[in-house]
Amino acid sequence: MGRAFRIGIAGLGTVGSGVIEVIQKNGDLLTARAGRRIEIVKVSAQSKKKRPVDISAYEWTDMPEVIADDKSLDAVVELMGGSEGAARSLVTRALKNGRHVVTANKALLAHHGHELAMLAEKNNASLMFEAAVAGGIPIIKALREGYAANRIEAVYGILNGTCNYILTQMRETGRSFGDVLTEAQDKGYAEADPTFDVDGIDAGHKLSILSAVAYGVKPEFKSMPLTGIRHLTATDIKFASELGYKIKLLGIARNYDGRIMQSVEPCLVPASSQIGAVENAFNAVYVVGDFSDKQLLTGRGAGAGPTASAVVADIVDLARGVKVPTFGVPAPNLYTMKVMDRGATKSRFYLRMTVLDRPGVIADIAAILRDQKISMESVLQHGRAPDLPVDLVMTTHEAIYEDMKESCRRITALDCTVSAPCLMPVVEL
Amino acid sequence: MGRAFRIGIAGLGTVGSGVIEVIQKNGDLLTARAGRRIEIVKVSAQSKKKRPVDISAYEWTDMPEVIADDKSLDAVVELMGGSEGAARSLVTRALKNGRHVVTANKALLAHHGHELAMLAEKNNASLMFEAAVAGGIPIIKALREGYAANRIEAVYGILNGTCNYILTQMRETGRSFGDVLTEAQDKGYAEADPTFDVDGIDAGHKLSILSAVAYGVKPEFKSMPLTGIRHLTATDIKFASELGYKIKLLGIARNYDGRIMQSVEPCLVPASSQIGAVENAFNAVYVVGDFSDKQLLTGRGAGAGPTASAVVADIVDLARGVKVPTFGVPAPNLYTMKVMDRGATKSRFYLRMTVLDRPGVIADIAAILRDQKISMESVLQHGRAPDLPVDLVMTTHEAIYEDMKESCRRITALDCTVSAPCLMPVVEL
Repeated sequence: MGRAFRIGIAGLGTVGSGVIEVIQKNGDLLTARAGRRIEIVKVSAQSKKKRPVDISAYEWTDMPEVIADDKSLDAVVELMGGSEGAARSLVTRALKNGRHVVTANKALLAHHGHELAMLAEKNNASLMFEAAVAGGIPIIKALREGYAANRIEAVYGILNGTCNYILTQMRETGRSFGDVLTEAQDKGYAEADPTFDVDGIDAGHKLSILSAVAYGVKPEFKSMPLTGIRHLTATDIKFASELGYKIKLLGIARNYDGRIMQSVEPCLVPASSQIGAVENAFNAVYVVGDFSDKQLLTGRGAGAGPTASAVVADIVDLARGVKVPTFGVPAPNLYTMKVMDRGATKSRFYLRMTVLDRPGVIADIAAILRDQKISMESVLQHGRAPDLPVDLVMTTHEAIYEDMKESCRRITALDCTVSAPCLMPVVEL
Repeated sequence: MGRAFRIGIAGLGTVGSGVIEVIQKNGDLLTARAGRRIEIVKVSAQSKKKRPVDISAYEWTDMPEVIADDKSLDAVVELMGGSEGAARSLVTRALKNGRHVVTANKALLAHHGHELAMLAEKNNASLMFEAAVAGGIPIIKALREGYAANRIEAVYGILNGTCNYILTQMRETGRSFGDVLTEAQDKGYAEADPTFDVDGIDAGHKLSILSAVAYGVKPEFKSMPLTGIRHLTATDIKFASELGYKIKLLGIARNYDGRIMQSVEPCLVPASSQIGAVENAFNAVYVVGDFSDKQLLTGRGAGAGPTASAVVADIVDLARGVKVPTFGVPAPNLYTMKVMDRGATKSRFYLRMTVLDRPGVIADIAAILRDQKISMESVLQHGRAPDLPVDLVMTTHEAIYEDMKESCRRITALDCTVSAPCLMPVVEL
């Protein structure tokens, strides 16, 4: 049995308390697995308020830098969150001091992942972040190690539990986005300011981390197009169901011969597919490798338990002496992402238009699509409402994204069009 | 860049050729990830016949012990198969020589896993076996490392692709087990002697390995009850569908306060569940941890590519210098499994009886169940055939397994019973 592995924890919110609970409850198991005891030495937070776990046995500080500077610690666990400020300083300082760092901070990694990986490797420290993506699902380990034999072709993820919950509830109850969001906020499933979740930013942070590990590139968040779920209507959900699909907010990172196309957007996936069965707050990551073929990992993407499970797995790895490059290849060898032009990519599409119900509307739209060489697969319109707005839904065969965007611009310009069309890829997983 | 990581490969069948293909095709990627080149030095097989990959650059031998004895190799890759004989000797000899071993051999691990882990750890070598369970799915790594923070409560697996393929085809086409098996054999999806697959032995080998890593016990295959899928009829599949379920051959290892209940048997799972969506040759493992909660990993469970992906991931781990105890805790600390008495466990059940269609039959059966304090949930009988055999299907509320077995014995003894009932657990995952 080696000496204890000493850690300091900065941030005692839901996840921080969860980590302490795991270490207190499963201490014997962790010792058996790591070959040494995991010892919480210091903790820090903004206030000393009452928490769900007993922290009286640990040294307390309200200055996280005290933890970063304690060279008797083996690892610093950063659970404060935020891409700048205290979290960034703490991680930077700890790595400069040669401490290992474990973090659940996706924003930090998405924005500063490469610089921090460089710093970690220069100081012979590890920077671990399993908990930053998809909660308890060991997807970082899977990509960095489990699929290490493969050239990764594509990664698709349901990466934001709040959005997946809202979309599931909209489908199951027929309610609007706004109604379900309000309920989710009341229940504490969604933040008071839901922007990070429902506009795709959180999923984008996570996707940029997945891409980095999958493709050996520096995390590239800034160039990523993000489309959230605010604009989706109960009608979209209903039409999708009727066509045999469910709508999921997917983070997609595809490899086109070394150029990577990243995007976060709502997509239609087959209702009977494995990823279609991932509902409510569950997350999923679907990985296609040239040898591993298609794999799907699913589990709870948030919450104290699952996130703490991932944080503590990283701690056990460190205590066991496991050492793997931060993003799977040494940080100086990470490429700057060559971004694939989304416009040139192909897929099938779903298009919902709100138009005035007049003779000739479908003919006008069909002519626009024909001019863009887009082939329609199906057209649905429910009910009649002469001269009033109605929803018209089409699915297309495989088409070029830029051609679809151009079609949308032209459809928007039609007299009969009430609002800009809703365009979503149809993804067969 | 470190010196090359030198390997010898014994066994050049489908998987062996696949491993060579991965290393030839993705060599640059592997070098970037492992930090050193993976170099195939020696290969061995029984004959020098033509293979799908070019092996002319490697030293050839038809004596695997030459590979085991070559101390210039860093790792020996055993892909011959079989729990005894050449494979066992090779692995034993390589470990005694302090070589790392990577194997895809589930039978070897199931029967001799503990003894080999002891030998490996005594000689400071690693014994790696990601490819032994569920093909390319990194489930061994997930249990050994990714879920290391958790007390594992249950593991459920679709571990045999042949069985899952047969069950999927039976459901989709309505054909009998025998018909689908014959077709699968013709297509090369099933062996000429299908016993290992369809009688649950292969799934049992894999489950014993999963249990060892999940629960920190020595692999325990001998005591495991195995029920295959030969006795399932098209009627079972049809009734299950009607009730909203699919039939899957599940390996189950549940933790009852330190006692482990292992079994391999066909079970009913909800048709709309994530595990219900795992069809054809796909495998899946569902893991419940006290903090990670429910997670499901799915992917191709066999075939050259996925299996080679797992073998090469182990090789990359070794080349990176990753060192973790064979079954997650040091081999001397693995417990001898305390086996939970299956008879005392509870679940819901599906019961199909073939009985003569006479008045009073249901009353007789209902009385037997009542005497065992078993509560029926539903009863289905299709069609009428006075005095001829008909199928009668029941599902029960939660009941004790031994009470169900006793009921089956009594039902079998009834005059009206044509053949022993088919009993399957209903598992809500």
